[in-house]
Amino acid sequence: MELDGVGGATPTTSKAAVVSASSQPGVDVDYLFAQVGIGTGSVEWTSNCGNCATGVALYAVSKGMVPVTGDRTRVVMRNTNTGAVLEGTVDTPGGVVHHFGRQTVPGTRAGGVAVGLTFRNPAGTTALLLPTGQAAQDLRVGAAEPVRVSMVTAGAPVVLVDAASAGRTGAESLERMSADVPWLRTVRHTAAPLMGLLQPGGEPGDAVPKVGLVGPPVPYTTTLGESIGAEDYDVSVRMLTMNAPHSAIGLTSAVAVAAAGLLQGSVVSRTTGGPTDEWLRLGTPAGVVAVRCTDVRDGLPHRVTVQRAARLLADARIYVPEAGSPQAA
Amino acid sequence: MELDGVGGATPTTSKAAVVSASSQPGVDVDYLFAQVGIGTGSVEWTSNCGNCATGVALYAVSKGMVPVTGDRTRVVMRNTNTGAVLEGTVDTPGGVVHHFGRQTVPGTRAGGVAVGLTFRNPAGTTALLLPTGQAAQDLRVGAAEPVRVSMVTAGAPVVLVDAASAGRTGAESLERMSADVPWLRTVRHTAAPLMGLLQPGGEPGDAVPKVGLVGPPVPYTTTLGESIGAEDYDVSVRMLTMNAPHSAIGLTSAVAVAAAGLLQGSVVSRTTGGPTDEWLRLGTPAGVVAVRCTDVRDGLPHRVTVQRAARLLADARIYVPEAGSPQAA
Repeated sequence: MELDGVGGATPTTSKAAVVSASSQPGVDVDYLFAQVGIGTGSVEWTSNCGNCATGVALYAVSKGMVPVTGDRTRVVMRNTNTGAVLEGTVDTPGGVVHHFGRQTVPGTRAGGVAVGLTFRNPAGTTALLLPTGQAAQDLRVGAAEPVRVSMVTAGAPVVLVDAASAGRTGAESLERMSADVPWLRTVRHTAAPLMGLLQPGGEPGDAVPKVGLVGPPVPYTTTLGESIGAEDYDVSVRMLTMNAPHSAIGLTSAVAVAAAGLLQGSVVSRTTGGPTDEWLRLGTPAGVVAVRCTDVRDGLPHRVTVQRAARLLADARIYVPEAGSPQAA
Repeated sequence: MELDGVGGATPTTSKAAVVSASSQPGVDVDYLFAQVGIGTGSVEWTSNCGNCATGVALYAVSKGMVPVTGDRTRVVMRNTNTGAVLEGTVDTPGGVVHHFGRQTVPGTRAGGVAVGLTFRNPAGTTALLLPTGQAAQDLRVGAAEPVRVSMVTAGAPVVLVDAASAGRTGAESLERMSADVPWLRTVRHTAAPLMGLLQPGGEPGDAVPKVGLVGPPVPYTTTLGESIGAEDYDVSVRMLTMNAPHSAIGLTSAVAVAAAGLLQGSVVSRTTGGPTDEWLRLGTPAGVVAVRCTDVRDGLPHRVTVQRAARLLADARIYVPEAGSPQAA
């Protein structure tokens, strides 16, 4: 229940970051990410968190750890758990740091300060970006007619299904997606060995590749009840997270969709009317997520930015019992 | 999810109190209790909260709103939502205010400062305390053999079943209690008209009377995994909260059990070996709760104190958007 401390009683809100100035050249701040167990008395230290990185960027600017540079201020951050380096670009209009703003992220109504979160070289090389060497191909899933898919590794390994080729729209409700989980698992397990994600004789897992549907934009209502027009976004995306429909889209999956959007013939660029390195607006059940590839060379995005938001909630002094005291047990 | 603010994503942890010095003679501090809706954008202002009162007592002492008076410091608090006046007695050993302590409450492992929370005149008059005029009686529930019950109104209207008379122990597991919910609802609905809680022609509800089993102490393991011996407590209690087993016991129910413990022949005093105005230790699924009646006149407890704990977690400055701004929506 997390009655004893500050946090929320869900894995999404039970997180902390320890921030310090970085000694590494070219890096502004280091942050150590803690996934705090709920009711377990334990902390998991091996992963990274994009939402925390977004918060760290605003924190670093608001606390003067990085000098403000005009309307936008860049923060280079190193996640010390994984070694990953990310950039946050914080809106500082007129050189002023704000606590709040008007930017929202899908699934929340709170207005925050716009923060662009940039992944560097998420695709590595062309061979890594397209593990099968093709931007799109037909995939036979079980005994059914083949479906059109793009298998892309950028941020994470992702298999994207052209919804129309599978008799879907890509704008399905979460309920409809739930009914498609067994089929999408079969797509995932079929794609895994083709993407080099399965050891010979091994059993396919459900973490990777990430799997989802893409389709053309259509009007729909978000899970928060907002009406979205077909003109408000560029491509419908419906992802799974493990074996459940994702209410929005993971940051690394958004990176992969944007990378696919760069590629001639991919299921994404065919939906959007051709390859693009402009902002790509993804329509997800919870709302629209904007993502953009920049610094593109030889079809490889060297930088992929996801539009996020952060908000200062509080400055707090937290009372912690001394280690070894009965209260610290 | 309460991503936008400070709180927890459960009703138990999504609460706030606004504290101020009281202008009322004999009252130290006023507090306004807010039950903050989760995902509703609304706040409920009509109820009180004993756990919040416990926290307010420690807050008032630690912030100097009440002068420290030796090893224990009393805080008289008025809940401005309901007008209820409660007393908190905060442990201040040697005249020092502590942030933490060794006192726990059932269901949490965190050590806090001991706070006795006292309800004044929870039973009103003898006629109100015993709505049927009897400390215990046989109650026929459906077609089964009668069971022995005490119907008591102190803090809240409560019907307590002598577990042995119903083929139970009073130390049942939560799973076993779940199976008994339909039967205990029948007990509640049978007792309601006898306690004057049902309008003629009305349908019985599930909020009152509160209903539970009492029995002798036996060794058991709490929901946190602690071993409790039969000598560690005085009476086993298993309550429902609405139509589910309560993992511990509500504060007002604890008051009613203590009041019943004062009465010759009640199902509580028969279990404890006779009426008592000493501390009564109630064994609940989550752990032991101590409660005591004092200032007893004519069998009526004018003060009932429940042993609780509070802990200072943080001092925080919370950033709130200005009313009317887009961010405040």
